[in-house]
Amino acid sequence: MNIIQPAPPSILPPELVARFAAIVGEKYAVTDPQETAPYLTEERGLFSGHSPLILRPGSTAEVAAICKLATETKTALVPQGGNTGLVGGQIPHNNEVVISLRRLDKVRAVDTQSNTMTVEAGVILANAQQRAADADRLFPLSLGAEGSCTIGGNLSTNAGGIAALAYGVARDLVLGLEVVLADGRIMHGLSSLKKDNTGYDLRDLFVGAEGTLGIITAATLKMFPKPRSVETAFAAITSPADALTLLDISRNIAAGSLTSFELIPQIAIDFTVKHGPSIRAPLADRHPWYVLMEISSPRDDARDTIEAILGDGMEKGIVHDAVIAANLDQRNAFWKLREVISPAQKPEGGSIKHDISVPVAAVPDFLTEADAAVAKLIPGARPFAFGHLGDGNIHYNVSQPVGADTAAYLARWHDMNDVVHAVVAKHGGSISAEHGIGVLKRDELPHVKDPVAFDIMRSIKHLLDPLNIMNPGKVL
Amino acid sequence: MNIIQPAPPSILPPELVARFAAIVGEKYAVTDPQETAPYLTEERGLFSGHSPLILRPGSTAEVAAICKLATETKTALVPQGGNTGLVGGQIPHNNEVVISLRRLDKVRAVDTQSNTMTVEAGVILANAQQRAADADRLFPLSLGAEGSCTIGGNLSTNAGGIAALAYGVARDLVLGLEVVLADGRIMHGLSSLKKDNTGYDLRDLFVGAEGTLGIITAATLKMFPKPRSVETAFAAITSPADALTLLDISRNIAAGSLTSFELIPQIAIDFTVKHGPSIRAPLADRHPWYVLMEISSPRDDARDTIEAILGDGMEKGIVHDAVIAANLDQRNAFWKLREVISPAQKPEGGSIKHDISVPVAAVPDFLTEADAAVAKLIPGARPFAFGHLGDGNIHYNVSQPVGADTAAYLARWHDMNDVVHAVVAKHGGSISAEHGIGVLKRDELPHVKDPVAFDIMRSIKHLLDPLNIMNPGKVL
Repeated sequence: MNIIQPAPPSILPPELVARFAAIVGEKYAVTDPQETAPYLTEERGLFSGHSPLILRPGSTAEVAAICKLATETKTALVPQGGNTGLVGGQIPHNNEVVISLRRLDKVRAVDTQSNTMTVEAGVILANAQQRAADADRLFPLSLGAEGSCTIGGNLSTNAGGIAALAYGVARDLVLGLEVVLADGRIMHGLSSLKKDNTGYDLRDLFVGAEGTLGIITAATLKMFPKPRSVETAFAAITSPADALTLLDISRNIAAGSLTSFELIPQIAIDFTVKHGPSIRAPLADRHPWYVLMEISSPRDDARDTIEAILGDGMEKGIVHDAVIAANLDQRNAFWKLREVISPAQKPEGGSIKHDISVPVAAVPDFLTEADAAVAKLIPGARPFAFGHLGDGNIHYNVSQPVGADTAAYLARWHDMNDVVHAVVAKHGGSISAEHGIGVLKRDELPHVKDPVAFDIMRSIKHLLDPLNIMNPGKVL
Repeated sequence: MNIIQPAPPSILPPELVARFAAIVGEKYAVTDPQETAPYLTEERGLFSGHSPLILRPGSTAEVAAICKLATETKTALVPQGGNTGLVGGQIPHNNEVVISLRRLDKVRAVDTQSNTMTVEAGVILANAQQRAADADRLFPLSLGAEGSCTIGGNLSTNAGGIAALAYGVARDLVLGLEVVLADGRIMHGLSSLKKDNTGYDLRDLFVGAEGTLGIITAATLKMFPKPRSVETAFAAITSPADALTLLDISRNIAAGSLTSFELIPQIAIDFTVKHGPSIRAPLADRHPWYVLMEISSPRDDARDTIEAILGDGMEKGIVHDAVIAANLDQRNAFWKLREVISPAQKPEGGSIKHDISVPVAAVPDFLTEADAAVAKLIPGARPFAFGHLGDGNIHYNVSQPVGADTAAYLARWHDMNDVVHAVVAKHGGSISAEHGIGVLKRDELPHVKDPVAFDIMRSIKHLLDPLNIMNPGKVL
């Protein structure tokens, strides 16, 4: 399914192509259809577009020159990082010029005393993690696409991931930004300051704006002490309500050392064991639900802590079985299972996805009510809810009924969104907890956003991008 | 010294006073000069103003009605919380109508499972802390004025304080806001969601805007597990550079359990012992510098942790002497000393203040260079630098030379600001780390802010407050 139909290719005047190409150099101005293809479709094939020109600038100054020319010629731009976004925000749906930030891949500075790292937008997340590790520090942002997604994309979409419980989302991990505006001006906001109350916070306006207000070209990120002991456990429980109780127990015992707390249903174990590459069920018996938790401590006490949590959970009758990873291989196996939960849905046919959040306390009720609404809408459809319980962020996916027609099932994507998002709204939740709006949820945003906030958003968009050339048609 | 001269009182037309008064009720529309006085001068007497009318609304709807009428009649408003701000942001310098939020003092909800608390703007910080404590939770924001400052003011100024090292500044502690705009519209942004990527982040635009973009009327705040063990120590060291090394040691041993790390010079001990109410020096001998540190842990291990830190510091020859608070009384005495550091400067004559931050690693160089610049400008002036080393945030105050004329010394406030802020700029620092801009630093802001960022700030101000009625003359 291609949710957004691509527009037919337009002709960008050759002289304009030449002017853009002159900024980055011929080598980095891509027009050959075979070479442009990887920039036009995201990996799942859910979104694809067309573009006459992919620009690959090598410096902030080149990005600024591109934006200046784009403003002068009213040429629309789509900024792109690792092209791993899940809502179509990085795809040129209307023949925009793509500006790929991947060549801005320098780590400009690492300061272990201030615990900061300044990196360019095109630095791949895993590389940023590695650079921090090399300096005996931790850069905690971690998500499935970390091997190919970029810091610029992480910030533009305010990425979440599996360590947000303890360290926060991307927004919480950035101290300063360098941003190129639509007109080519550069906002020099890189900063290693932990505290700075000199005027309005513009940083958080660009973080999460999905490239619609400007292009993030570099960022100063926070680093943390590297944990000295890490323990990972898989625990079997009966229900999401019991998972919440276990979360309470965990937080009270571990506080900030509780770095992950993922809820996983039995169906996810079934799918991953069946379809994943050499995945085994961590526990021998079947249980309705599981929690994958991780404790990361600056001292040697992660083992004691996780044992105390599981011991308390068993004593209270909440944890029915549990296994603590005995070694790094087993720990990696647990996380591998978690990682393939998403792709393992594919062989089971169509999967209609919702990236929602509700207040943590509301997760059990949300799941009960959403399951009921889905069963009523499409009997036999298989709810497949997993994710970051500690953040109230559930990836509420629904696989098609066994043997159903996939195309017919996926054609009901919006119908199902409607019923699930109605339950989200009832609990004061969000229809996009961590993936953003892009084009996928653009038309739904006005219906779920406070009208005054939505109006301010539109005004700010017009203020910073009056010609609507920065990732037009995304978010708003 | 009154930094901003008040304008002479203007006459607000009686019929307009009556229209405003009708919104809140006669009882809460204060015009009697004796009753308005407490709203017009902050406690140090550094800023004072005039106002024909103090409005004390009792609900968000009343705040909205006031703003609507203010827009209709182009009446300027100054929002005010506990009137404890240090940069004059809450004072009506030009006969504005003051809108005191103190009656909005309800705690609307406490959710221990989601670890959130929704409070109105007028709730006093200490009361918010207490409500969290009553629910066996921690609301960590903590600062000298906590007995009288309000949550609305804390958010509008993005307050910092002594626990920011572990828990972040006010901005980091808020999930959602309810805001009344200049035209009286209400942005309903209260939210208990840990993750929400539905569009631009407007919350952080209002946080720290000092009431110039809208009036925060309520907020959803984060709560944390209450620490089970807390240990506080006073350690003697030779230099700020050694304090940094000790900070490194502390972070590596304690990570997130290191909740405070305050740098204190000998002169601050001298002043507090001499002028403070029953303050004793924590250590027998005199040392050039001290660190006041606190460890807060969810487990019983705070004592082990702080002993490990101090032991390591002593072994490395950095810590020369140290005392761990033996009981709650002693802990309170340590913090009492810290708290009276500010007022204890007063009996020593004039004190020229700087609330600066630099990257943590740059603090020692900043102090050396600033001391030299001050000695050159006013020989004999006594640098008095203390504060939140872990955040790179130093309250770099300078007491007058012994026996100097106070008025003549204070007349050089701006000269000294210039030389100190030049050193701040050299290290990529901030001239307002946690107190904000207000009127005190308004004229300096354009010189230290990135011009593009400053231009965006002005545009956003114009966008949200086209008539310039929201705390006019503050920040911008």
